[in-house]
Amino acid sequence: MEPVLAHSVRLADDGVHILDRRNFPFERTWVRCATVAEVAKAIEDMVTQSSGPYFAALWGMVLAAREARGLPAAEGRAYLDRAGRLLVETRRTNNHLRKAVAAVLAGVDASDDLEAGALAGARAGDERYRSRSRALGGHTAVLLPDEGTVLTHCWADLYLTETVKAANALGKRLRFFCTETRPYLQGARLTAGTLAEMGVDTTVITDGMGAAAFSSGEVDVLLTAADRVTMDGHVVNKVGTLGLAVAASAFAVPFLAMVQAPDRLAPTAADVPIEFRPGDDVLHTLGRRTAGDGVKGWYPAFDVTPPRFVSSVVTDRGAYAPDRLSEYYNGEEVHD
Amino acid sequence: MEPVLAHSVRLADDGVHILDRRNFPFERTWVRCATVAEVAKAIEDMVTQSSGPYFAALWGMVLAAREARGLPAAEGRAYLDRAGRLLVETRRTNNHLRKAVAAVLAGVDASDDLEAGALAGARAGDERYRSRSRALGGHTAVLLPDEGTVLTHCWADLYLTETVKAANALGKRLRFFCTETRPYLQGARLTAGTLAEMGVDTTVITDGMGAAAFSSGEVDVLLTAADRVTMDGHVVNKVGTLGLAVAASAFAVPFLAMVQAPDRLAPTAADVPIEFRPGDDVLHTLGRRTAGDGVKGWYPAFDVTPPRFVSSVVTDRGAYAPDRLSEYYNGEEVHD
Repeated sequence: MEPVLAHSVRLADDGVHILDRRNFPFERTWVRCATVAEVAKAIEDMVTQSSGPYFAALWGMVLAAREARGLPAAEGRAYLDRAGRLLVETRRTNNHLRKAVAAVLAGVDASDDLEAGALAGARAGDERYRSRSRALGGHTAVLLPDEGTVLTHCWADLYLTETVKAANALGKRLRFFCTETRPYLQGARLTAGTLAEMGVDTTVITDGMGAAAFSSGEVDVLLTAADRVTMDGHVVNKVGTLGLAVAASAFAVPFLAMVQAPDRLAPTAADVPIEFRPGDDVLHTLGRRTAGDGVKGWYPAFDVTPPRFVSSVVTDRGAYAPDRLSEYYNGEEVHD
Repeated sequence: MEPVLAHSVRLADDGVHILDRRNFPFERTWVRCATVAEVAKAIEDMVTQSSGPYFAALWGMVLAAREARGLPAAEGRAYLDRAGRLLVETRRTNNHLRKAVAAVLAGVDASDDLEAGALAGARAGDERYRSRSRALGGHTAVLLPDEGTVLTHCWADLYLTETVKAANALGKRLRFFCTETRPYLQGARLTAGTLAEMGVDTTVITDGMGAAAFSSGEVDVLLTAADRVTMDGHVVNKVGTLGLAVAASAFAVPFLAMVQAPDRLAPTAADVPIEFRPGDDVLHTLGRRTAGDGVKGWYPAFDVTPPRFVSSVVTDRGAYAPDRLSEYYNGEEVHD
């Protein structure tokens, strides 16, 4: 069964429609972006997150191709380049955006028709992302216990839903613990809601309870997505992952990090810029003030888990120890 | 300067008035408890927490003595015993309540007059708690850097405010990071608000950001209260402390736990019952639903940090390594 969040960015004649994850599941509203600039703004405003910006960038580039209609070929191509840069600049820690733009530009460059090429490129990018997530989910599911409890953080999106589908197909009986993932509550809202939608036994904990869950034996495995994994095994993911990984390690709970592929453009953690978001977001919950007056907030959106706290990095080609990620590319062409 | 939370339980002719910490600082309402039974209910309902229940129990016992007015001496004393048991049963992880009840009963047993004795006992208990917190704050302040950043979790109440006062008196320049401490947000509401009220540079983070703060060098010391410290150095405190302590240890940040005295009734962690509160609390923030439908919550109110993650336990008699806590009682009479 496909949960609603698996198809939350849609191309239509009047633009790109993006399910607003900021108030999901309490409200189900779609933001319509008529132009690629509006798509970029929606990504920047966190209307969608996790894999959402990837899909939004794919279809946003199709809007850009429509906007370039009628321009001479070289100018149209230059317009798409500018649109791609605009999209990539919206969020800098994840490299999904760069890949989405590249997929569309590859389609454009393989076609005589800008719009048809962009559409073909976006469709190929969409299908490729989904099939790689499916493969990744299959590789992850075999590593999970036949019966047990998985703790996950933030919202691992298609990696998680594909893992659950694959685990179900293998007859595994899994319970999930989800951290709520403040300040945006992706865990409480997106992960918990989607797991429940998929029929999974789901328990929400606060972001501070992971260590208590590990130390008391409630949890068999820590499983998160990664926004990026560097070639030397650093896992860059939603802030909070590091604390969970350190605690899991202290209490001998394995940590599996899911990413389609390690990032050859990031040999080590210093190569990944960490995005800071407005500190004020930490002082509010769903728009309501939750902190006292006269204080600041601090909001690094991501943290970096060193490889010594990572058991395995699961990719679309299988699982790798964090110090053996270069094997992912053995005998392969460059493939980002 | 004394912040408002330093005097948030008051005895009056018409009962005990307790500042409602559940909505502080957004609302400043006082709950009036006309009877000891109402005081017990207020503690159970979390109207107050941290040291609040200690003071509420002191003055609640004075109400019980008023209620026993006119009873024969033995019956009056038995009435107070029952009232004490009622108060102690409200929250079981912390042993403040037992001490408050014992302080009042000691006053009663030293007097010919039940009411006068209860009042004297409560006043002695109040003064004793405050003077020991002052001593503890002084011992803690000398351990902090002359200039630097302290991360604290939940609300350490008088231990924290006395530490800040003592550090100010020593000319130290400290910034504080506070975790928000979901689900009740004691850190965001009580700690952050009170530190700001005291003029301290204060930054709120979510409960998942501690490890990121430690690993990036933002923080010099982790400082929390402890609800109990066992004689073998286990620190029992608000859930979330364990994860912070493990992360601090991983990144070589010292962890100081503050408690007036280690608990001779708790040789080790198995002797401390861990209170579970309603899981539903995790699914809400300030009364508003923050999790998706069809999911459960899990809420152990406390966690247990093993001594290997504790640098020092600071008491009213000074700081002790967690494996040398028995020295606290060297040459002393039993003194709980």
